[in-house]
Amino acid sequence: MTRGRFITLEGGEGAGKSTQLKALAAALRGRGLDVVETREPGGSEGAEAIRALLLTGEADRWNPRAEALLFAAARSDHVDKTIRPALERGAWVLSDRFLDSSRAYQGMGDLGDADILTLHQIGSGGFAPDRSFFLFLPDGEAERRAHDRDGGAADRIGGRDPAFHRAVADRFARIAAQEPDRVRSIDASGERAEVTARLMEALDDLLP
Amino acid sequence: MTRGRFITLEGGEGAGKSTQLKALAAALRGRGLDVVETREPGGSEGAEAIRALLLTGEADRWNPRAEALLFAAARSDHVDKTIRPALERGAWVLSDRFLDSSRAYQGMGDLGDADILTLHQIGSGGFAPDRSFFLFLPDGEAERRAHDRDGGAADRIGGRDPAFHRAVADRFARIAAQEPDRVRSIDASGERAEVTARLMEALDDLLP
Repeated sequence: MTRGRFITLEGGEGAGKSTQLKALAAALRGRGLDVVETREPGGSEGAEAIRALLLTGEADRWNPRAEALLFAAARSDHVDKTIRPALERGAWVLSDRFLDSSRAYQGMGDLGDADILTLHQIGSGGFAPDRSFFLFLPDGEAERRAHDRDGGAADRIGGRDPAFHRAVADRFARIAAQEPDRVRSIDASGERAEVTARLMEALDDLLP
Repeated sequence: MTRGRFITLEGGEGAGKSTQLKALAAALRGRGLDVVETREPGGSEGAEAIRALLLTGEADRWNPRAEALLFAAARSDHVDKTIRPALERGAWVLSDRFLDSSRAYQGMGDLGDADILTLHQIGSGGFAPDRSFFLFLPDGEAERRAHDRDGGAADRIGGRDPAFHRAVADRFARIAAQEPDRVRSIDASGERAEVTARLMEALDDLLP
């Protein structure tokens, strides 16, 4: 049995990660592959329990260091219980967010990128995706999409500082520059099927 | 306001940590000190929620790396929300277990002592107790106490390999040898009041 491939979709809110994950899974199944769709935080029983701790309560319930440790604990469980077993039986695994989101979001405050990577090394032996797609949109496009979707109601994107979103995008761009073999930056604007075609093209070297 | 002192009680099961913590708290209050009693895992709202994840479910619910990350996350919250604020208002804080238990228990499997210390550095800036008491009993005494308490019913101590308990005791002994200023090994055999008197004597240099 050939080991499957582990593919992650990353990027800011509103770039269409969840939609493209479904479309990419369908395209890969169309090639006869066994595909597992998963997400972070979560993706296994234990990690989903940690997700509930992370997403409930006050916004400042966890200090940034405790939050990063909880993400790393959830990721350790997710890798151990869901991702590795699926890859070993030959399935392809697509995850909506993974380590790069921790690097872009949690690695921005008290903690730096080196700390986030250390936590991942201890928690998951540094387990890395075979390919990571960073979906990006032209400036302002993510905000317009969120506005259209929510009818202009206040939401997490609308409520956050544009400088925050630029900082996240900058951190993703820096990771992409550091790891060109693993990471592909994908233009997520245009028709959904066009974006899916870009993803499939950028997987061509990994497909059987 | 003088900062309070942070005191931890450590040791294997059955050494009387919880009983001695209460007795020590009473003795310190008798000296006019404000005393906060706490425990790990737990001791703050968030850390108690993590404790529930750690103590429920199957024994192998968490892999050893995820477990160590969860302990470090709980400790980060405990230090941040309970311990530091109490010390800053001048209270003495007594904790039933702290970092040394993670070093003795979780630092024994896949992870080593250096990993546990790294997690504590990232999670809590390496925050250390002013004094840590390691309560030890003569060989076999802890098992006898547990047997007397439970009427011989199967329990976690009875169910565990004696080699495990010896390994934990050895790891505590190694930490005590490495950090003689912080750690005092205390003979926990004999009458309860005698043991409390030993603890108070070993705090003499810190008392106001």
